[in-house]
Amino acid sequence: MKRLLLILALGMPATILAAAPPVGIVIHGGAGTIDRSQMSSEQQKNYEATLAEAVNKGYELLAAGGSSVDAVTLAVTVLENSPLFNAGKGAVYTWEETHELDAAIMMGQDRNAGAVASVTTVKNPILLARAVMEKSEHVMLTGKGAEQFALAQQLEQVDNSYFNTEFRYEALKRARQAQQSVPHQAAIIPDPNWKMGTVGAVAIDKDGNLAAATSTGGMTAKRWGRVGDVPVIGAGNFADNTSCAVSGTGHGEYFIRYNVASDICARVKYQGKNAAVAAKEVITELLDAGGTGGVIVVDAQGELSWAFNTPGMYRAKRNHRGTVIEIFADESEKISN
Amino acid sequence: MKRLLLILALGMPATILAAAPPVGIVIHGGAGTIDRSQMSSEQQKNYEATLAEAVNKGYELLAAGGSSVDAVTLAVTVLENSPLFNAGKGAVYTWEETHELDAAIMMGQDRNAGAVASVTTVKNPILLARAVMEKSEHVMLTGKGAEQFALAQQLEQVDNSYFNTEFRYEALKRARQAQQSVPHQAAIIPDPNWKMGTVGAVAIDKDGNLAAATSTGGMTAKRWGRVGDVPVIGAGNFADNTSCAVSGTGHGEYFIRYNVASDICARVKYQGKNAAVAAKEVITELLDAGGTGGVIVVDAQGELSWAFNTPGMYRAKRNHRGTVIEIFADESEKISN
Repeated sequence: MKRLLLILALGMPATILAAAPPVGIVIHGGAGTIDRSQMSSEQQKNYEATLAEAVNKGYELLAAGGSSVDAVTLAVTVLENSPLFNAGKGAVYTWEETHELDAAIMMGQDRNAGAVASVTTVKNPILLARAVMEKSEHVMLTGKGAEQFALAQQLEQVDNSYFNTEFRYEALKRARQAQQSVPHQAAIIPDPNWKMGTVGAVAIDKDGNLAAATSTGGMTAKRWGRVGDVPVIGAGNFADNTSCAVSGTGHGEYFIRYNVASDICARVKYQGKNAAVAAKEVITELLDAGGTGGVIVVDAQGELSWAFNTPGMYRAKRNHRGTVIEIFADESEKISN
Repeated sequence: MKRLLLILALGMPATILAAAPPVGIVIHGGAGTIDRSQMSSEQQKNYEATLAEAVNKGYELLAAGGSSVDAVTLAVTVLENSPLFNAGKGAVYTWEETHELDAAIMMGQDRNAGAVASVTTVKNPILLARAVMEKSEHVMLTGKGAEQFALAQQLEQVDNSYFNTEFRYEALKRARQAQQSVPHQAAIIPDPNWKMGTVGAVAIDKDGNLAAATSTGGMTAKRWGRVGDVPVIGAGNFADNTSCAVSGTGHGEYFIRYNVASDICARVKYQGKNAAVAAKEVITELLDAGGTGGVIVVDAQGELSWAFNTPGMYRAKRNHRGTVIEIFADESEKISN
């Protein structure tokens, strides 16, 4: 019987034997109230060009046989190096006019993961998260200790002022003006976008391995060493080959309380749901609970999807079917190539 | 029809109308290689007396009509104030001979949560986690920022030396001696207990509300601002009225990667599994992946359980059936009251 199966296997075309899902990548640059009337066509072109650069670099790496963890690292690095998004160079300001950055990365084949919180001098936090995953026995490092580890790993250091941008400084000033003075309390700022902004990528490679990477500057005017969902594995970032890989963006506190990323994958794994359907369910339930934001998802079959409950999310995806780059919620998917 | 139902309801005995599950609480003081031959009967009595004090104070509060979140806070505070357990007063030493404490708390009815990481001057980190949950718009605060918030909340401050104990200092010296010198790397220490030790409590109250609280000094000789599973909501601490509440203890990195607490609750919610069965499954799978530790669980029906893959776990539980206090794995449950 064993011999017969071997003969049958040898007689099958290689494509059927391999039966690998197609490689693919999805990226996001944050969800929120993105107002079409406030965005010039030149601004829109800039956003779309950077999204295209990130998704194309990631896809080309995958198409050349590279790994999903390399593809998501590369795509997130492109977005971190752009001043347009709230991560890396474009990180928002804290209450004290500094920048504190968070990032996480996870591999689906062994669920290895790395995360960093509140780092201030590392140019690309996603590279530090990856070093934590690969070069330490830990999953999560924070603050000055994480920066000492970055130095030991010889990662590129910058002065915290590298992250300064005029656009984000104006946002901090507006956030401070809007913030009610509530003594002894971390109060809410009534601006729908102040808690938003993240970049992320999820991918599947030729071996069927999933990976997710997410990076953020956090919340404008954040205080008290606040950490959001990004470095909380299972909240804003998650990957498991038996279900899916997810990167989230939105109001981090809700993403933590509702385990958004791992809940989507749990519904796939335990309820047998399609990942896109599970993502829509969780993002709908999140809004019911008061939380806004979105996710990008890739499942073990290579299906690429996104779901969000905001007027817009900077997003792009690419696989053998083509490329989609969108910003607003009312855009229908136009595949280009 | 409405009127008929109302009449039927009024005619039913109050006990059936209420149908509330019994109140109950489970606590733990850490899992690991607890060697019977190394423990004097006096030491064992001390551990059991402190476990009894914590579980009884929590249960009496519940029996008097108190809330589950108050019960788990009280029980964890008792364990934090004891030098016997790796949390609060008995916290382990970092590589730099200081103490960095983590804690988290979560309520099942609204999934509100609070977590703190790397705090050094707050006497009871669980009270700070609770203040984050109740008095801020955030879920997770870290380091100096978290301590500033603690000051604003007028929580009791201590010098970091308050957490000094000779027993833990000896453990640090042993851990350092054992640690291989691996440049530019956070290396593993070959002592099965160096990464262990946490305290926690889960409870259900008269309204059927679940809560979980966990507190720890983390890993002996930890470096680089390492944070474990405790403040990562869904890893070492989780509560959801629709499934269960879990507090974990063990090798934190594995608890994060395998979302131990929320995975147990996801199996209850999505697969309809009994919580005790789901806990055993997840703790068995954790060991298969190389992770050691344990969990305590209470489900929405008030069933109290624990599961661990180590030779021992300091643990106790109490409900209307009585009290169980155990340390070693080979103890069978002897209910006393």
